[in-house]
Amino acid sequence: MLRVGLLGAGRIGQVHAVGIAGNARSSLVAVSDVHTESAQKLAAAYGAQARSSDDILADPEIDAVLIATSTDTHSDLIEAAAKAGKAVLCEKPVDLSLERAQQCLKAVEGTGKPVMIGFNRRFDPNFAALKASLQKGQIGKAELLAVTSFDPAPPPVSYIKVSGGLFRDMMIHDFDMANFLMGEAPVTVRAVGSSIVDPEIGAAGDVDTAVVTLTYADGRIAVIKNSRRAVYGYDQRVELLGSDGLLQAGNMLENTVVRSTVDGVVSGKPTYFFLERYMPAYAAEWQAFVDAVLDGAKMPVTLQDGIAALAMAEAATESARTGQAVDLKG
Amino acid sequence: MLRVGLLGAGRIGQVHAVGIAGNARSSLVAVSDVHTESAQKLAAAYGAQARSSDDILADPEIDAVLIATSTDTHSDLIEAAAKAGKAVLCEKPVDLSLERAQQCLKAVEGTGKPVMIGFNRRFDPNFAALKASLQKGQIGKAELLAVTSFDPAPPPVSYIKVSGGLFRDMMIHDFDMANFLMGEAPVTVRAVGSSIVDPEIGAAGDVDTAVVTLTYADGRIAVIKNSRRAVYGYDQRVELLGSDGLLQAGNMLENTVVRSTVDGVVSGKPTYFFLERYMPAYAAEWQAFVDAVLDGAKMPVTLQDGIAALAMAEAATESARTGQAVDLKG
Amino acid sequence: MLRVGLLGAGRIGQVHAVGIAGNARSSLVAVSDVHTESAQKLAAAYGAQARSSDDILADPEIDAVLIATSTDTHSDLIEAAAKAGKAVLCEKPVDLSLERAQQCLKAVEGTGKPVMIGFNRRFDPNFAALKASLQKGQIGKAELLAVTSFDPAPPPVSYIKVSGGLFRDMMIHDFDMANFLMGEAPVTVRAVGSSIVDPEIGAAGDVDTAVVTLTYADGRIAVIKNSRRAVYGYDQRVELLGSDGLLQAGNMLENTVVRSTVDGVVSGKPTYFFLERYMPAYAAEWQAFVDAVLDGAKMPVTLQDGIAALAMAEAATESARTGQAVDLKG
Amino acid sequence: MLRVGLLGAGRIGQVHAVGIAGNARSSLVAVSDVHTESAQKLAAAYGAQARSSDDILADPEIDAVLIATSTDTHSDLIEAAAKAGKAVLCEKPVDLSLERAQQCLKAVEGTGKPVMIGFNRRFDPNFAALKASLQKGQIGKAELLAVTSFDPAPPPVSYIKVSGGLFRDMMIHDFDMANFLMGEAPVTVRAVGSSIVDPEIGAAGDVDTAVVTLTYADGRIAVIKNSRRAVYGYDQRVELLGSDGLLQAGNMLENTVVRSTVDGVVSGKPTYFFLERYMPAYAAEWQAFVDAVLDGAKMPVTLQDGIAALAMAEAATESARTGQAVDLKG
Repeated sequence: MLRVGLLGAGRIGQVHAVGIAGNARSSLVAVSDVHTESAQKLAAAYGAQARSSDDILADPEIDAVLIATSTDTHSDLIEAAAKAGKAVLCEKPVDLSLERAQQCLKAVEGTGKPVMIGFNRRFDPNFAALKASLQKGQIGKAELLAVTSFDPAPPPVSYIKVSGGLFRDMMIHDFDMANFLMGEAPVTVRAVGSSIVDPEIGAAGDVDTAVVTLTYADGRIAVIKNSRRAVYGYDQRVELLGSDGLLQAGNMLENTVVRSTVDGVVSGKPTYFFLERYMPAYAAEWQAFVDAVLDGAKMPVTLQDGIAALAMAEAATESARTGQAVDLKG
Repeated sequence: MLRVGLLGAGRIGQVHAVGIAGNARSSLVAVSDVHTESAQKLAAAYGAQARSSDDILADPEIDAVLIATSTDTHSDLIEAAAKAGKAVLCEKPVDLSLERAQQCLKAVEGTGKPVMIGFNRRFDPNFAALKASLQKGQIGKAELLAVTSFDPAPPPVSYIKVSGGLFRDMMIHDFDMANFLMGEAPVTVRAVGSSIVDPEIGAAGDVDTAVVTLTYADGRIAVIKNSRRAVYGYDQRVELLGSDGLLQAGNMLENTVVRSTVDGVVSGKPTYFFLERYMPAYAAEWQAFVDAVLDGAKMPVTLQDGIAALAMAEAATESARTGQAVDLKG
Repeated sequence: MLRVGLLGAGRIGQVHAVGIAGNARSSLVAVSDVHTESAQKLAAAYGAQARSSDDILADPEIDAVLIATSTDTHSDLIEAAAKAGKAVLCEKPVDLSLERAQQCLKAVEGTGKPVMIGFNRRFDPNFAALKASLQKGQIGKAELLAVTSFDPAPPPVSYIKVSGGLFRDMMIHDFDMANFLMGEAPVTVRAVGSSIVDPEIGAAGDVDTAVVTLTYADGRIAVIKNSRRAVYGYDQRVELLGSDGLLQAGNMLENTVVRSTVDGVVSGKPTYFFLERYMPAYAAEWQAFVDAVLDGAKMPVTLQDGIAALAMAEAATESARTGQAVDLKG
Repeated sequence: MLRVGLLGAGRIGQVHAVGIAGNARSSLVAVSDVHTESAQKLAAAYGAQARSSDDILADPEIDAVLIATSTDTHSDLIEAAAKAGKAVLCEKPVDLSLERAQQCLKAVEGTGKPVMIGFNRRFDPNFAALKASLQKGQIGKAELLAVTSFDPAPPPVSYIKVSGGLFRDMMIHDFDMANFLMGEAPVTVRAVGSSIVDPEIGAAGDVDTAVVTLTYADGRIAVIKNSRRAVYGYDQRVELLGSDGLLQAGNMLENTVVRSTVDGVVSGKPTYFFLERYMPAYAAEWQAFVDAVLDGAKMPVTLQDGIAALAMAEAATESARTGQAVDLKG
């Protein structure tokens, strides 16, 4: 049984609390948050204690921490937790600064403690099944990957300003998906982006619509499309062409009802946003972390994976700004 | 907070335990089973006590019982629980004997306690959305209903022998679905059945493949298809033609992956069986029961509903045997 | 090259004219119609001659006739054409009277001339592919067939009155589909019907909504649903459960465009009616007839097939009237 | 009635012959080809005459020519035909040289004769319906376009060598689709390509897999994916995200049969190649040309459209070679 401290009691922290408490191999023993009241409320709901982060890290009875705090605290908390001997599952992204994330990696490596980054989409049953089919060789060799990832609506501009930008905040998931499916990092990143959904996003220095093309050493190609607005719901699809066929993973729908009238044939929309779509993925992610820690297995997503995606986000940000292709260092 | 005793710790009892324990408005306090060990194991997993049914019914601290025991005990337990002042959720069918079920209804009516029958499919998000669309008038007036309900594989013949037969054991869900969607009971039942899946089922006096046609006082028609074997998984679909359109509710799939190769385009199969398909329905059913009890609202599925479906099952059994249409009494 | 006379220049005659003229192995040489003007117009469009039916049948230069006249003339024309040495393709149904159709069969058998009945749906690429899959054994042994067949809108009541009723006029196609897919005639027919689409149809002594259940000697079951009104278009589907799987053949859609908005996900409707849906089937049907005549092969649909479907229509009409099951004679 | 000469009796010429002969407003009167025998055979099948191109252009009785010869003859034939007073429908691309195509445009403008370029996909019922929905404002303002266009199998390397390369030969259709749907030319073209399907294609100096990103003056983005090999069939899809929703146009399938077994749920594949998929598009394209010529209306696809797509192909070829973005001149 893994005794877990949850750092961060916001929206995503609450999602993880469900998973930690509901898992047969883990128990939620402590919760911290900069807003003490949030921590207390969440802790109370699960019979856990509200404590400070320092307190949680110092407690030898706590085996693991889940870091669900704001991004600017991730690197510090990962380091501190690993040094305190905890296993760590940290939400993405590792950091907004690639350099800081790399320092963090070095610091953590010394501790020998396992650190996992929360790229939840790898655990989505649909994307996981697509990967499994690929690994079984069912479409031969992968050649051309296309990732579509649209949010239902843009976040507030106040959030955009501290987010690190679309490539670091939103497309980072898709960079990791590309790495997950292509099995290696690309060599070159080309990005275009614009703010046509909301000019205020442009005014804040960010884009809301973007396309990134990735090329691989062996000639394979991947393309990622992002938009901050798909009014019909969270649109998360992957399509991979291989030498022997095509794999597509589609959206989960609200329900399977189809209504045929004179106006057309109407089906359910995609589930609304990440909480609806990825709840099973969060549970599977946590299960994978717990199993790896308790069974001494390899982390399914590593700090290096988090850094690889961050490097791609940084390259894409630069490419979108300069209009030039950016080579990734090996 | 509803304090709940669970009677029956078998497969379906275990499903309900998850729902009772996971619901914010109920807690599982006691479990009984004819196999004491099963009750103990299930109780331990949820911090509840293993007790005898009598004990649970006699405990004034227990507000409600969920009856998930074998069918032959349902009527007795419903009566005893209602007389003991408990709110009752009982698994379908009420009884294998229509007469006994009607006695049970009379006995319960005197107590004034709420009794709900567990027709879980009414709470399936897909069928519930279909019903909601119908009620909004989106296909006008319902005219022709078709229910398809195939199990992945037949149960053991030993189970068939005590099941009451396909119409009482399996199609009873579809009879209730017809009542749920058509809003009233039919006037005539016509059934045909045969045992082509497994001749041993026929030797045991039952059928494994059946079609029932229901006619309504106003000319509407419903048809139900059942098979004990659909090798590709649990096939549970509803299709309702109305004056202004058609509503269809389809299966849930294992995942959304589609694989296109020279051999064709392959999608995921339906989820395997009722546990996979109806887990959300069981949770929604329990929520509806808890809300009705705690808020003093009308039961969403009543004992009368259970009896209406049972009467149709009895009529279908007779019709399949005699080859004649059977009229239902008003 | 087959020289063809077309008897009947109405809507369905015009459909066939396209096929006869467009086929590389046949040429349309003459057209007749009770309205001389219709015959002249259609003949002119294809460089054929407008002549009387008698004239066409008497012309030794004409190899084959396609009978697309009103149903009450079918038997007489089939007999006359066969006796005149023509190969015959006659639209369904053979006759409204089973007895008359059987006389026709006897009369034709003496001539040795090939007669085909126009059950066009056997040649629909979707139903033909379903049958091919069944014959390859891809779902094992057929067990439970369901045919859905809805027209977009009812015909005028004036047509209903001379149509022979829904079972002879509309469901006869589905009876033939059942025979085509199940490979033999059923032993018992059970029908229910009502007029809920349009009470005037009921006043004219017919039904507009009906369900027929067919049982087979070996225990297999088929069910057919008909409605005269599906406002979203021509709904023509077949579903066949077998020991190793399920086959479904769906509708053709107007187009493949899918539109996702806040209001839902909207797809194209089924093609509107039989002309849109079955145009490829009519061409394939004609090809099959021409090939069989020119190559001396067996007719793909025989006069006996037409009579078998008619016998089922007659039994269904009786069953719907009496409420009793009707046994078919072997 | 438009009297038509067909220049070129190869595969695509034969497709057009069906359309010209089958159209009620046009007749095929002459056919030419460098292989006299091919012209004679095709002409004979339609009661037309085999003649030389010069002969056809010189015949005042011929109103229009359809140019379906090899690409290197297109510009010369367009000029000669326009000067000879014919209306012209010429297969894509106009030319492999943008400069030559521009000269051709100048030469033709002087004649005042209508010239249409054969971008058949604009007339595909699915893409046309998508465009119609966009024009009705059903997804608001277009923002992000994705075109997927995969051939089932690469052509022989001998063809690749004279094709002008993937961007001019294959993706030119998709460039025109982008112009058709976005309503204007992009400002910048970025291309990546590689030969991973067949190294011989790379050895011949071409690519077989490519992604092109187009950016528009107002911030909109389009992305095109091409592969020379999709083993499951011709994969031709368009997806357009707008401010109020998403439009998707999918493939046509072989048939609508779905087979569910223990191995999964298998649907029909896309129709095999362009002849199967686009036959209705070729007929609609020809109809649009005939109507425009006979009714004096504007050509639905102009020589300028052909040149715009060619300019994009040239830019993409350069971008893929240099790795740099290429700006299009206004």
